[in-house]
Amino acid sequence: MKIRELGEFAFIDRVLAAAGRERTPVVLGIGDDASILAPEPGRELVVTTDMLMEGVHFLRESTPPEDLGFKSLVVNLSDIAAMGGNPIQAYLSLALTPGTEVEEMDMFIKGFLEAAGDRVQLSGGDTVSSQAGWAISVTVVGDVKEGAALRRAAAAVGDIIYLSGPTGESAAGLAFLLDQFSLKDVTAEPLIRAHNRPVPELDLGSILSESGLCACAIDISDGLLQDLGHICRASSVGARLFLDKIPLTDELVEAAKAANIDPYQWPLTGGEDYRLLFMIREKNVKLLEEALKGLDSPIQPIGIVEKGESIQLFNRGRQVPVPEKGGHDHFRN
Amino acid sequence: MKIRELGEFAFIDRVLAAAGRERTPVVLGIGDDASILAPEPGRELVVTTDMLMEGVHFLRESTPPEDLGFKSLVVNLSDIAAMGGNPIQAYLSLALTPGTEVEEMDMFIKGFLEAAGDRVQLSGGDTVSSQAGWAISVTVVGDVKEGAALRRAAAAVGDIIYLSGPTGESAAGLAFLLDQFSLKDVTAEPLIRAHNRPVPELDLGSILSESGLCACAIDISDGLLQDLGHICRASSVGARLFLDKIPLTDELVEAAKAANIDPYQWPLTGGEDYRLLFMIREKNVKLLEEALKGLDSPIQPIGIVEKGESIQLFNRGRQVPVPEKGGHDHFRN
Repeated sequence: MKIRELGEFAFIDRVLAAAGRERTPVVLGIGDDASILAPEPGRELVVTTDMLMEGVHFLRESTPPEDLGFKSLVVNLSDIAAMGGNPIQAYLSLALTPGTEVEEMDMFIKGFLEAAGDRVQLSGGDTVSSQAGWAISVTVVGDVKEGAALRRAAAAVGDIIYLSGPTGESAAGLAFLLDQFSLKDVTAEPLIRAHNRPVPELDLGSILSESGLCACAIDISDGLLQDLGHICRASSVGARLFLDKIPLTDELVEAAKAANIDPYQWPLTGGEDYRLLFMIREKNVKLLEEALKGLDSPIQPIGIVEKGESIQLFNRGRQVPVPEKGGHDHFRN
Repeated sequence: MKIRELGEFAFIDRVLAAAGRERTPVVLGIGDDASILAPEPGRELVVTTDMLMEGVHFLRESTPPEDLGFKSLVVNLSDIAAMGGNPIQAYLSLALTPGTEVEEMDMFIKGFLEAAGDRVQLSGGDTVSSQAGWAISVTVVGDVKEGAALRRAAAAVGDIIYLSGPTGESAAGLAFLLDQFSLKDVTAEPLIRAHNRPVPELDLGSILSESGLCACAIDISDGLLQDLGHICRASSVGARLFLDKIPLTDELVEAAKAANIDPYQWPLTGGEDYRLLFMIREKNVKLLEEALKGLDSPIQPIGIVEKGESIQLFNRGRQVPVPEKGGHDHFRN
């Protein structure tokens, strides 16, 4: 069945049925002019929003709709994680071409709600028609301990720069999906999964803010260089990155060989793995390791914050040039 | 200059400069992974979101960009008004074609901030590129007295149905802009203004909720019949509307004559004037008039809530048929 046969309001009813009942602190969810939220005392709210366009952020022909729904929410959950927050509500606005199959939408919603799990309530949105391609806009509201949010402007000279795990795999997966090189299925699969099903670092973000051991973080959506650059500009500092400390998976190394590129290109300029990049005062390093016990996160120190305003790269003790392409600019590329 | 020459981050800097500094209760505005909001005790938060697509909701050739920016925010402010809330933050996500003139965007942002005025802080968003046409997604966060939000599900049999002012003018203005008939400039001007520059009923909504005299409201975005229908379904009631009580402006009557249609067609099925439709218990009518003294709002009783589930229309004491086209369905029309 096409979405134009189902109609807007029947579609909303389907989403409503799938989204389930609201739970505290959501007082009123989907179905009114706005949702109602009753935040707890001692908490502040964090709000983020992201937009995904067909043909720019995703290709509908080559992305399973479930993965697209999943990722649409994850990119926002990752921003909440980067603030050290706990996500509560999601809002989903969809612009759809009227010839869209209802089954495709049902799969999209299924993936979206899978990413929401038990912790995030779908609480509203908008459904409109589009003349050319889908547009997906998601907003997430979360909360964080009062005064404990992780900010971009909180890096200080001498801080250790941590990365929450391997990055660049998503960019490698995308390059593979775009037929830029060939790979064995067993090597390509985890890269494609990194691209289609990234996992937001919510537990890590939450521990970083609640513990008070960290004040500064960002999620990597545009590549290590560009996202670290955002922190440096906001904090008026520079940074030194040690390439040999950046973890690379075997699959990424193999893909870089097949694509005939430097294996660090994807981590530095690729983005979309949604790892956290965060800054820790040297005196807090031991306490951090303690706080993260029990959390299965392979965090890795990859650099230090310095005076100045530039990012310098080192590999095995020797300075190396910074790649020219510094990440993604939506209007220029 | 084209937006692709300016680049994404320079564009964000321009918006940041125009949006100004955050004020309480906004702790952190544009520029981080998420914004931070510290709500006051005794208040609940109301959140709403709307999406506007080029070619579906607006024609860029015939809409001044300032008006488009203004209206993009107003449609959301109107939802906050319909909950009886006070808007605090706005989030603006824009998908733009890279050949967009920077001046057009500056005018859009100017109109958006004009609608925001002193009461709403632009606190975040996203800017992405679009392959075909603009997409605009806006989210607004507001607050409301704890437990006092105006809900669609709160109508009761015997309630008086109020309308906050003339409606249908926006639909008449749109029909004129689409060249469906001709009019003198002096007649067309207020209709076009109603379409391009609707005013959200924030003061009225706020008094209705804070006074405790009203529990049920909706804003008219899809026409009286469809929006009253939403209330009837949510509240499991029916309604009787008195057409002769619905205020019609001279310009609307003249336009209906020129278009050769029933003057009530636009108010009943047209929408987009963003008037409030709200329900008042009979015993509260006197107190309401008292509460609204000093507010320049020509509220008008136009019907009563009844048992059943249908909406019946009366004109000068006689029942008249309900027009077939009941409002807007995004996927069906």
